[in-house]
Amino acid sequence: MKHSIAVLGAGSWGTSLALVLEENGHDVRLWGNHVEQMREINEAHTNKRYLPDVTLAAGIKGYTDLAEAIKDVDVILFVVPTKAIRSVAKQVSSLLTKPAIIVHASKGLEQDTHKRVSEILAEEIPVALREAIVVLSGPSHAEEVANKDITTITSASENEAAAKFVQDIFMNDYFRIYTNSDVIGVEMGAALKNIIAVGAGVLHGLGYGDNAKAALMTRGLAEISRLGVSFGANPLTFIGLSGVGDLIVTCTSVHSRNWRAGDMIGQGKALPEILESMGMIVEGVATTKAAYELAAEKGVDMPITNAIYDVLYQDVTAREAILHLMTRDGKSE
Amino acid sequence: MKHSIAVLGAGSWGTSLALVLEENGHDVRLWGNHVEQMREINEAHTNKRYLPDVTLAAGIKGYTDLAEAIKDVDVILFVVPTKAIRSVAKQVSSLLTKPAIIVHASKGLEQDTHKRVSEILAEEIPVALREAIVVLSGPSHAEEVANKDITTITSASENEAAAKFVQDIFMNDYFRIYTNSDVIGVEMGAALKNIIAVGAGVLHGLGYGDNAKAALMTRGLAEISRLGVSFGANPLTFIGLSGVGDLIVTCTSVHSRNWRAGDMIGQGKALPEILESMGMIVEGVATTKAAYELAAEKGVDMPITNAIYDVLYQDVTAREAILHLMTRDGKSE
Repeated sequence: MKHSIAVLGAGSWGTSLALVLEENGHDVRLWGNHVEQMREINEAHTNKRYLPDVTLAAGIKGYTDLAEAIKDVDVILFVVPTKAIRSVAKQVSSLLTKPAIIVHASKGLEQDTHKRVSEILAEEIPVALREAIVVLSGPSHAEEVANKDITTITSASENEAAAKFVQDIFMNDYFRIYTNSDVIGVEMGAALKNIIAVGAGVLHGLGYGDNAKAALMTRGLAEISRLGVSFGANPLTFIGLSGVGDLIVTCTSVHSRNWRAGDMIGQGKALPEILESMGMIVEGVATTKAAYELAAEKGVDMPITNAIYDVLYQDVTAREAILHLMTRDGKSE
Repeated sequence: MKHSIAVLGAGSWGTSLALVLEENGHDVRLWGNHVEQMREINEAHTNKRYLPDVTLAAGIKGYTDLAEAIKDVDVILFVVPTKAIRSVAKQVSSLLTKPAIIVHASKGLEQDTHKRVSEILAEEIPVALREAIVVLSGPSHAEEVANKDITTITSASENEAAAKFVQDIFMNDYFRIYTNSDVIGVEMGAALKNIIAVGAGVLHGLGYGDNAKAALMTRGLAEISRLGVSFGANPLTFIGLSGVGDLIVTCTSVHSRNWRAGDMIGQGKALPEILESMGMIVEGVATTKAAYELAAEKGVDMPITNAIYDVLYQDVTAREAILHLMTRDGKSE
């Protein structure tokens, strides 16, 4: 069945998800702030800055007017950066005239409040204007989705019918969706994995091998899972696509900003210099601080996160932090 | 405290574990069948065939006489190939004069019986001659351990004191051990991950990207876990070092025989030709058949294992098998 869907955010991931939906026969409206970029999408059918090698289907229409983009749609898919979620949700809420299924594919925790994206959406969009909130998350380089390479992700919601509805609108022979009811676990895994990606970069920068990286990823996953469980997540969610799946892609890809920042730290560069040279947000750096504070609040043991926090914020060298990690008392898994 | 330990099997992993134990101050006897190799270890302090770049500590003594190697030792560590476990255990049993802690670091299931290594050891070594059986498993290239790179592995036993004892004898500032009580989960994860490594190679050979590999590894882990649970394993063990940790190392290393066999299949070569050209056992090929049979017996759904079985044994092409996997009905995680 054909649905009308507004995709908010025309970066690489929003555009790739719009391509899948259009190919599946839906009416897709892609909203973004930049007039020139929207004109390029509508006239040249490209989005060169974010997907340089891709020709967009003519069915994808770009909108700069949010009211028009979301008018009478069945689904609103948020793919804006985490820090913009609250303000865009406020605007949507003031413009929406009938309830829609609210979906998001943003990974991270809100600065200061440490709230998950679905919590922000629930606060800003009144119950009367939303049928459900659904989270999309999983291991997915946007470029590979745009190229119709095989990808699998999770559709998570407390509302099982809504999770299945989102599964249905996205599924095809290269894009496969698994439903999950554990929204907390899915969102916590997606946000916290960026801490471990910074650590994987640090190990690479220091010259460590595969054993050390597997140790970091596995024990990192164990502590992410502990923090998630303290907020009500199911520990088995972390063995899934939004947990270990996304962790593997993020920690083994040299394209991850988090990994690259860590790599430069491992090579001995200072954090302010790294952040300046990259000229963009490195989510994992902020998420490390958030997780450090949340773990302290909840009394959860997160030795790897603490070690990365010490390196990022406390002038401890990476080698000192690693030696400290390795010489703790023996533990059980 | 200093212990006397016999390490049975002088391949790369046995030799590397012997190096760690020697460095930790224990009396280490390394047993192997090959007279020339044992002489090389005792005289030149090298084991060039298996660890070409390493000088062995003079404290490591090579033995070809099994009775002498295990005489009065506290610990016997089996690091022989899975197919040799039963015959070596029989010999040990006939020669042992006082009980020892039995440890093994072999990964795989016995051909035909599909038994785990600890089950074989329990059958062949009488209770009166063993204090406990402990399994060592985790993400570990032997060469990196010999180079004192950072490594973490699991020591699993139903006997908690024995698991901790093994943790103690191995732990130092580059080799860290976590205890676990789930022997079934640790052994099943170690054996079954080789199936997924074959699949990862196939995807690489076909030219697929990171999303597809993460999908395979994550959904592969889910079905390995299901089979393990049907035999009594704890599903959370598969999120640990012997599960996802070892899976990551095996599926991302081009040195894995399983991965290389899969890669050649993806490139369109035929299995008999591949096995002949490699000239050695590819565990994952046999393990795929074992898991396929066990899953049928237990009624466990293993779509990825079935797909790899079809490609290896049923003349289905890899592309057909993938299309079939991707176009099944939608599932939950």
